[in-house]
Amino acid sequence: MSGNTFGKAFRITTFGESHGAGVGVVIDGCPSGLELSEEDVQIELDRRKPGQSSITTPRKEEDKIMIVSGVLDGKTTGAPIAMYAHNRDKDSSKYLEFINKPRPSHGDFAYREKYGHYDWRGAGRYSGRETLARVAAGAVARKLLAKAGIEILGHTVSVKGVEVRDVSIEDIRANVESNPIRCADKKAAEKMEAEIQNARESGDSLGGVAEVIALNVPAGLGDPVFDKLDADIAKAFMSVGAIKGVEIGSGFSASSMLGSENNDPFVIEDGRVKTKTNNSGGIQAGISNGMPIVARAAVKPTSSISKKQDTVDLEKMENTTIEVKGRHDPCIVPRVLPVLEAMLALVLVDHAMRSGLIK
Amino acid sequence: MSGNTFGKAFRITTFGESHGAGVGVVIDGCPSGLELSEEDVQIELDRRKPGQSSITTPRKEEDKIMIVSGVLDGKTTGAPIAMYAHNRDKDSSKYLEFINKPRPSHGDFAYREKYGHYDWRGAGRYSGRETLARVAAGAVARKLLAKAGIEILGHTVSVKGVEVRDVSIEDIRANVESNPIRCADKKAAEKMEAEIQNARESGDSLGGVAEVIALNVPAGLGDPVFDKLDADIAKAFMSVGAIKGVEIGSGFSASSMLGSENNDPFVIEDGRVKTKTNNSGGIQAGISNGMPIVARAAVKPTSSISKKQDTVDLEKMENTTIEVKGRHDPCIVPRVLPVLEAMLALVLVDHAMRSGLIK
Amino acid sequence: MSGNTFGKAFRITTFGESHGAGVGVVIDGCPSGLELSEEDVQIELDRRKPGQSSITTPRKEEDKIMIVSGVLDGKTTGAPIAMYAHNRDKDSSKYLEFINKPRPSHGDFAYREKYGHYDWRGAGRYSGRETLARVAAGAVARKLLAKAGIEILGHTVSVKGVEVRDVSIEDIRANVESNPIRCADKKAAEKMEAEIQNARESGDSLGGVAEVIALNVPAGLGDPVFDKLDADIAKAFMSVGAIKGVEIGSGFSASSMLGSENNDPFVIEDGRVKTKTNNSGGIQAGISNGMPIVARAAVKPTSSISKKQDTVDLEKMENTTIEVKGRHDPCIVPRVLPVLEAMLALVLVDHAMRSGLIK
Amino acid sequence: MSGNTFGKAFRITTFGESHGAGVGVVIDGCPSGLELSEEDVQIELDRRKPGQSSITTPRKEEDKIMIVSGVLDGKTTGAPIAMYAHNRDKDSSKYLEFINKPRPSHGDFAYREKYGHYDWRGAGRYSGRETLARVAAGAVARKLLAKAGIEILGHTVSVKGVEVRDVSIEDIRANVESNPIRCADKKAAEKMEAEIQNARESGDSLGGVAEVIALNVPAGLGDPVFDKLDADIAKAFMSVGAIKGVEIGSGFSASSMLGSENNDPFVIEDGRVKTKTNNSGGIQAGISNGMPIVARAAVKPTSSISKKQDTVDLEKMENTTIEVKGRHDPCIVPRVLPVLEAMLALVLVDHAMRSGLIK
Repeated sequence: MSGNTFGKAFRITTFGESHGAGVGVVIDGCPSGLELSEEDVQIELDRRKPGQSSITTPRKEEDKIMIVSGVLDGKTTGAPIAMYAHNRDKDSSKYLEFINKPRPSHGDFAYREKYGHYDWRGAGRYSGRETLARVAAGAVARKLLAKAGIEILGHTVSVKGVEVRDVSIEDIRANVESNPIRCADKKAAEKMEAEIQNARESGDSLGGVAEVIALNVPAGLGDPVFDKLDADIAKAFMSVGAIKGVEIGSGFSASSMLGSENNDPFVIEDGRVKTKTNNSGGIQAGISNGMPIVARAAVKPTSSISKKQDTVDLEKMENTTIEVKGRHDPCIVPRVLPVLEAMLALVLVDHAMRSGLIK
Repeated sequence: MSGNTFGKAFRITTFGESHGAGVGVVIDGCPSGLELSEEDVQIELDRRKPGQSSITTPRKEEDKIMIVSGVLDGKTTGAPIAMYAHNRDKDSSKYLEFINKPRPSHGDFAYREKYGHYDWRGAGRYSGRETLARVAAGAVARKLLAKAGIEILGHTVSVKGVEVRDVSIEDIRANVESNPIRCADKKAAEKMEAEIQNARESGDSLGGVAEVIALNVPAGLGDPVFDKLDADIAKAFMSVGAIKGVEIGSGFSASSMLGSENNDPFVIEDGRVKTKTNNSGGIQAGISNGMPIVARAAVKPTSSISKKQDTVDLEKMENTTIEVKGRHDPCIVPRVLPVLEAMLALVLVDHAMRSGLIK
Repeated sequence: MSGNTFGKAFRITTFGESHGAGVGVVIDGCPSGLELSEEDVQIELDRRKPGQSSITTPRKEEDKIMIVSGVLDGKTTGAPIAMYAHNRDKDSSKYLEFINKPRPSHGDFAYREKYGHYDWRGAGRYSGRETLARVAAGAVARKLLAKAGIEILGHTVSVKGVEVRDVSIEDIRANVESNPIRCADKKAAEKMEAEIQNARESGDSLGGVAEVIALNVPAGLGDPVFDKLDADIAKAFMSVGAIKGVEIGSGFSASSMLGSENNDPFVIEDGRVKTKTNNSGGIQAGISNGMPIVARAAVKPTSSISKKQDTVDLEKMENTTIEVKGRHDPCIVPRVLPVLEAMLALVLVDHAMRSGLIK
Repeated sequence: MSGNTFGKAFRITTFGESHGAGVGVVIDGCPSGLELSEEDVQIELDRRKPGQSSITTPRKEEDKIMIVSGVLDGKTTGAPIAMYAHNRDKDSSKYLEFINKPRPSHGDFAYREKYGHYDWRGAGRYSGRETLARVAAGAVARKLLAKAGIEILGHTVSVKGVEVRDVSIEDIRANVESNPIRCADKKAAEKMEAEIQNARESGDSLGGVAEVIALNVPAGLGDPVFDKLDADIAKAFMSVGAIKGVEIGSGFSASSMLGSENNDPFVIEDGRVKTKTNNSGGIQAGISNGMPIVARAAVKPTSSISKKQDTVDLEKMENTTIEVKGRHDPCIVPRVLPVLEAMLALVLVDHAMRSGLIK
């Protein structure tokens, strides 16, 4: 059954494979009258695209987006917005081997088991390339949110155990795009980069933790009891490849805290209700409470590594080994960040429309 | 907009409030011909209900379930299955105060902001009592899964920093229902219980981590790219009150591992493809791979504590304090476990039906 | 797969069987703050219930509705509204025969083929009794619509070829509840009643056409291209048992008209844009245009007739005959009307919420 | 809110406008392993495309379809299938006038009221051109249905009061593509064509009735109580522009029949259960009963006529007149037929997947 649509009021449907003709998305439910240009979308895609730095894959893709429908005279019309980018730099030959010798912790085996006949070229549909479509849709969502005053920020909070010190919103705004790690703590960024170069040289890969924050979200978003705001964020993040964990606010650390430590006392500040701490991550009982939304995702080390690995030959049904040579990101955290930002934007715009905040 | 339905093929809709007439659920999509009795459901509800031990709330509720529709002669008919339990032990008087003086980290404030007029009695719709309906539906899901050979197990893996040693599936089966913590490691269980009694006596509360495992799930469940199996589990778990984090397999620990450590090498065992390790938690590229599904949830310390807390008076718009006296679970982990098991069962049965495994 | 939920923003899920414990509905998505009492719902149910006159079935049912959840202090809370009515007057014995000898044009055969094990008692889930739940939900929808100034009216326009003369909105308001046919043309009503009594005496049944009108619907409701307002009305009406056709505005008569006759010229009246005629039935390109919504449904003659009929014995796989004795409505049109009104209300409130008109 | 997706298991989302870059569709949920080529789709599009005969619009469009994703080596992969056709023959200049002077019974006024800013060029999203996407998706649905032995046929049953005599399935197969009316009764086809030429010459237009039949549909498709097979067909047909009525089996004529005439007696034939008549149109209680599915749609006369018509000037808010010169189909019935066939195919494949018949 179908699973390529996300959202209820602001719905996106993605299509396309890594080494197919291209990748695209249809947005259904975007209100009419929003100013929207291809440049608005391209600017977000450029933050996701490969080849941005020495620590990302050298695959050469322009990721040039086309808006195919839904926009007239620079404004949305209320009709579905279809967007599309061609694939350019494809070399599928090396992937043929993995149909029968699945790469560990990749989708090769599961896809073969589920679909029988599937697109194996460059990981096809389970390639990170599919996230291009999410970032494109997220760019539209961000424009709608910006009109409501909502801002979304992402930053890398750890790589291979190297953690950022406490960073402020200002640090994030100022520093994230100044280093290839997208880390707001420049010292930590240097250590992280060294770890990544180290892993690359040894043919290995690294994971990390990414944090995404939404500012100025008013209280009242989220639909109990299943479409709670945090539940939808958890799904949105976990649906991104390489994500193995999601937490909101104090997250897993709450599990070793006392209630008196973890609870967020209310307080009046400047005539508004706030909380002194934000262990709730801006969400209580599944509904935004007016504080910043804070969500983190655990990013596993890239599955593609060039070290020799054990696997099986599915035709011969015997054990064997493979080496996955080629173009990989040794640490995907910096490129996952724009995707997670997009997913948070998509969840928020969906709930903002559901609640009537955006229409 | 509506958010009280979960699932696509096996859909549940819950209703009812903590201090209303009762709590119930309608299941739409259950195949006909499944043997189903009220006892089948009651047995699961009894694991969730209050008053099971000294570390749970003394609220007295039988949680006696009635099957209202969808079953004839002991078998499901394919029609919606409505189930319902009356509320008995209600005392709403003390909650009136919290409309204007919201309890920290509870839903009081967010509900008031979102709904204006809402059911504040005993936390109403955002009470843990709503999960009774989920467990009832989960009992039906488990029966369907059992016919396909799928088993679901839950256990407590940490409370306030006290962690279980490595426990086996056999330990879990043998020990979980033998202690009030639902911990498979008896030594750890004793320490956890001591911590909980300690917290109770000081008017405070504790969190922990719960793990749920599904055995014998065949490869092929999960619908990329958004309805990935892990994405739906993340949503399912995070939609439960008190959950602040979700992880699959190696989860957050993957963020500090090397790819060569985290990758799960494939191997042939007994003529079947398995993986040597299970850092993937049974899910790769969003699709089950035949290994056990392993998911964990971070449970925050119960928000209700009897210690004095800072809050605000929303009528006077001034700072104030409250003390939340009454019946609370000082640590909700053992009672959350059956709920998380139910949610995993609901996700799996939905995808099993979507894939044609169950019909 | 599940099919017992209707609507996207204002969602209803019905449950219950004709001879089960009772019939109910859960409404998810109703805004908080709506005044709602059991009397508000009962008044609509009383228009649908059996035994209202000599031309309806003598089955004795109070159809006493209970609001189980979602309402506090006489107002909705934003939580799911569950409503329920017990079944009282059940006598299932005579239906046992029809498991093996399906009644012509009833659901007996199709249910058996689809479900294998199903509830055959009193037609179970495919009994007209299920519509009680729709009317209950529709009563809530009507209250929301009334706040937006929208009024819904229904009347019988033909029975067995006897047609109403042109009747005005005033005629409908004045006359519909004054005769058992719910016909606004009193002369026609008398002829229709005579036809119905005639059919009843000969053990036969009659069909007719029902019309439902919505007044004061503003322009802009309906979501192209699939959730057009007329498409959703067509589904809503056709989902009611006994309905074999649906038309909007000029409907089937448009098929023999010229474009110059069928087109509705626009005109300014009292400073507002209207159309001189309303062959569009208030809907153009799937969107309401501000004129009255006019929809009609073809109601087939009741399938239950006491005349001897040919059928098959499914056990012996041989031809046979049956006589369906018992309590039937010889013409269901007057009792279908409140159901169709409810369905139109449900479609309109769903779209009114989707468009932001009601929130 | 979004309305451009149809189906639950086999889901299609369409995009594109009449005078935009092109028109396309994304199919989500198509099983892997189906043989599918662009030719398979093109053959259906060619039956819908303009310029086929003297009675259709002379707009020149190749409607050349491209399959963008979801197919590898001539077979579907289980990933979304995106298909797209460029628009070629666009001349938007004449439509500018209708923003302020809406054409009677077109979408101009309703779109302006709903969206404010919308694509007015060539009727944009509410142009019949959008149905190209439906026919493309329907071609895939038909291939899946054909594997299950299900065949879909369409024919014109009346134009402006000229009706076909009783025609057999063989007549339909033999004659429909032999005349521009797609009428299985050649004599009637000639009269219909004369009526259409007559209307064209007088600058007017005509409506008619189209019938679509599905053969070899097994019993058991359809999901009560809202997703009944006939309910979904009604929505599918009514969502097509120009359709004002839908009926199943005996349809509106049932309203003047006796139950003893309209009921379909069961009978054993060749060891299988059939009905002697098929007034049910193959659907009872919302579920297919194994007899042919028979559905009809009332097609209104084309709204675009070149005769002078009354309308309003929305800027000046005063009455005025327009003449809609240009390229119109004087009778759209023959070109609507492939669209209705596609819609029936989409409903059937969705329910066939929901029931497990196709997977």
